[in-house]
Amino acid sequence: MGLWFTEEQTKDLNISCRVKETLHVEKSEYQDIALLETNEFGRMLVLDGAIQTTIKDEFVYHEMISHIPLFTHPNPKRVAVIGGGDGGTIREILKHKSVEKATLVDIDKRVVEVAKQYLPEISVALNDSRAEVRIEDGIEFVKSHRDEFDVIMVDSTDPVGPAVGLFVKEFYQSIYDALKEDGIFVAQTESPFYNGKFIASVYRDVRTVFPIAKVFLCNVPTYPGGLWCFTLGSKKYDPEKAQGIDTKGFDCKYYSEKVHKAAFALPPFAKKYLE
Amino acid sequence: MGLWFTEEQTKDLNISCRVKETLHVEKSEYQDIALLETNEFGRMLVLDGAIQTTIKDEFVYHEMISHIPLFTHPNPKRVAVIGGGDGGTIREILKHKSVEKATLVDIDKRVVEVAKQYLPEISVALNDSRAEVRIEDGIEFVKSHRDEFDVIMVDSTDPVGPAVGLFVKEFYQSIYDALKEDGIFVAQTESPFYNGKFIASVYRDVRTVFPIAKVFLCNVPTYPGGLWCFTLGSKKYDPEKAQGIDTKGFDCKYYSEKVHKAAFALPPFAKKYLE
Repeated sequence: MGLWFTEEQTKDLNISCRVKETLHVEKSEYQDIALLETNEFGRMLVLDGAIQTTIKDEFVYHEMISHIPLFTHPNPKRVAVIGGGDGGTIREILKHKSVEKATLVDIDKRVVEVAKQYLPEISVALNDSRAEVRIEDGIEFVKSHRDEFDVIMVDSTDPVGPAVGLFVKEFYQSIYDALKEDGIFVAQTESPFYNGKFIASVYRDVRTVFPIAKVFLCNVPTYPGGLWCFTLGSKKYDPEKAQGIDTKGFDCKYYSEKVHKAAFALPPFAKKYLE
Repeated sequence: MGLWFTEEQTKDLNISCRVKETLHVEKSEYQDIALLETNEFGRMLVLDGAIQTTIKDEFVYHEMISHIPLFTHPNPKRVAVIGGGDGGTIREILKHKSVEKATLVDIDKRVVEVAKQYLPEISVALNDSRAEVRIEDGIEFVKSHRDEFDVIMVDSTDPVGPAVGLFVKEFYQSIYDALKEDGIFVAQTESPFYNGKFIASVYRDVRTVFPIAKVFLCNVPTYPGGLWCFTLGSKKYDPEKAQGIDTKGFDCKYYSEKVHKAAFALPPFAKKYLE
């Protein structure tokens, strides 16, 4: 049977993947959730029609959102992830031995449950004794903490629907307040090719809240255009000057010390959004 | 009218672009040529069903294939491009004032003619007094020269059809012989995500012919997965140690000194193909 899943990446650009089997489809309280078995990427989590993660390429996003801030911080102990219900970011965070507790805060329990059922390679660490899973509103969670976290990661869907409140200055200020005096914040912030104005706006806000603000890149083949960026805000440590990076035992497929440094080399077309 | 162009990027993965107008379609002696006006990428050149270049993102590929070797060489005067009939690589090469002559060798005169007619922004430099356009077989051209070029670039289609002979060890040896004693060779060599074994094979061959062999990356949003690589062979100069990079007046949108250095930071999953 010629079954294809098509994502509308922009209104004029689609990506289509051949599907072996539709494993799960539901409408949760917050979004449409689909779990597909694809030929090219293996199992794929789709939220509101947008590809979130796949078995084949999930390592890129999860390694980069985690290891860049965690190797920038000299001794991260308390980490929070807002969103990221699939658990891939928690898996990478817990590779850092210094981390005592990593808290996942996802508003949609069904994403966590579907990931646990269908994506064991990704959700594997959610039952770790150092992992805490909280099903609640990430905005309220962050507001209710102060001076507590070494690193906070916003591992969200696109800035529409349930995630829209995660991309406003007030939220960045709440994150600043929830971080310790040398804390680091990082968020996924879309495609430099397709979302330049959005990135410019996020960067401007983060820069007004944090003394150090940087954007870094990676390549996720299932995201529009491949090129993807994260925005990082830091109270003290400059991620471009991270030292003592040692990934021994991490089994990284994308991240390395050299990749860490290179990720901050923005092409001029992307850099201009930060001016 | 809902007109879409679909490229089969792999047998299980398609990319589709909304088309405003089909400006030109023909079957040349060597390949199917199409020139489309797309909503997302502007005008787009398609050869044998594969997107070659678009107005919106052509700068990435053309800047990276050109400036990495040309800023590695301290004084490039004679440059040859095998393939690259759209002229974008020649345009970037001629930004280097040291270059006295840049020779384009494309087997298909119709690609050059279609580019001149429909892609003036890309083909603009083909009539420059320092540019020479030769319609002939690149393999024979390279064989007939010895100790003549500072840089040779293989700006080809995918390694199927007319381009297949451009990805064999005998051809790399011919290029070595056609280069001066400190010459540099570079070729587009596909996607690290989708063509790892191919890259491994090319790299192994280039490494046996050239004392220095390196792979570098860029991100072309219209190519499968976005992440794309080039393989470079050099007789003397290490591209990672390039010095005195000055892009003033080049109007680069992707290339910069920082991007040059960062391009060689291969993620571990890609690096393993070079072992």
